[in-house]
Amino acid sequence: MEIYPSEVSPQFIDLFMNQIKFTEEEFRLMLSFFRREYVPRKFFFLKAGQIAKYKAYINKGSVRNFTTDEKGGEHILYFSFEDWWVGDLESFYNQQPATINVQAMEDCEILCLQKNDLERLGEQIPKLKQLFVEKEKRSFFSHIKRLQEVKSLSAEDRYINLINKHPEIFQRIPLQYIAMYLDIEPQSLSRLRKRLSCK
Amino acid sequence: MEIYPSEVSPQFIDLFMNQIKFTEEEFRLMLSFFRREYVPRKFFFLKAGQIAKYKAYINKGSVRNFTTDEKGGEHILYFSFEDWWVGDLESFYNQQPATINVQAMEDCEILCLQKNDLERLGEQIPKLKQLFVEKEKRSFFSHIKRLQEVKSLSAEDRYINLINKHPEIFQRIPLQYIAMYLDIEPQSLSRLRKRLSCK
Repeated sequence: MEIYPSEVSPQFIDLFMNQIKFTEEEFRLMLSFFRREYVPRKFFFLKAGQIAKYKAYINKGSVRNFTTDEKGGEHILYFSFEDWWVGDLESFYNQQPATINVQAMEDCEILCLQKNDLERLGEQIPKLKQLFVEKEKRSFFSHIKRLQEVKSLSAEDRYINLINKHPEIFQRIPLQYIAMYLDIEPQSLSRLRKRLSCK
Repeated sequence: MEIYPSEVSPQFIDLFMNQIKFTEEEFRLMLSFFRREYVPRKFFFLKAGQIAKYKAYINKGSVRNFTTDEKGGEHILYFSFEDWWVGDLESFYNQQPATINVQAMEDCEILCLQKNDLERLGEQIPKLKQLFVEKEKRSFFSHIKRLQEVKSLSAEDRYINLINKHPEIFQRIPLQYIAMYLDIEPQSLSRLRKRLSCK
């Protein structure tokens, strides 16, 4: 189904039209390769074991990206919101089974680009290739930060980082998942919130 | 000081000559931009707070990459060995203070390329640019794996992963640092080694 420019978020338009200076024609050409997926709340956009088919942009909604251990325990690596690119990049680029699950936390609208279309488009519009190199570099840096945070910060400091970055997170993500992200019990998170809100 | 092809590791030569098919001339041109740094054991190649000046290749030796918390506690993100590129990439690309410390665990020989030289070389030899894009993508993937591991695996499983990847690690890195990497006490690591070696 064709996607019209009026149906994509202002950030998506800004990214391509202002930040990397696409022409109208380039933008329409690119958009013609995208398809839109609706992923209702709690449904999976990607499951570990599948091959990630898409380079995917969250036009609306939020997801949790998590990994499971051998006992089936779930471990949230990070949440992603509007204007983020999501998926399992290694699975996408190397066409190997994903190790990350991507599950909708709200009803989501995701704009998807297949690998061969991305490659074709990249040949036609080289600055698109450059854009993804830059985006992935920034994503890489934020993963390093996340690793540093997980290794070196207390639950309280990780909580403070999270609400500083996403002040609206408790309105959008159930508390149990935020607790899982922070590696603490939901009760401890409730106590922590209460304590910090009294400061 | 000029670096001669005979002074760089076979992996370094293989990377450029075989994997990305440099000509002899391109290889010599590139090498002329590198400088070699000797970093004795326990010395720092990069300290948090400094600007990372180099894209850096470990020609010989090993380092630990760590971050510190506000109480001065050290948290090892990962070790790097020969044929790895090291440093704080965000600091290097954005010329902002590093948040990662890189300390030699053995006497190291590191081949260094400055940012402006990397850019000049990238213009002259476009496949060099592509190489670093690919290398950084792989490094990104391994950071995601490391984050998954830290979030979801037990110390024992992280230990097994580590010795599977680096069977020689106990000959090269002091036990206290391996324990720090695994987030366990040195005594627990000794017991774990003993128990697993008896299996």
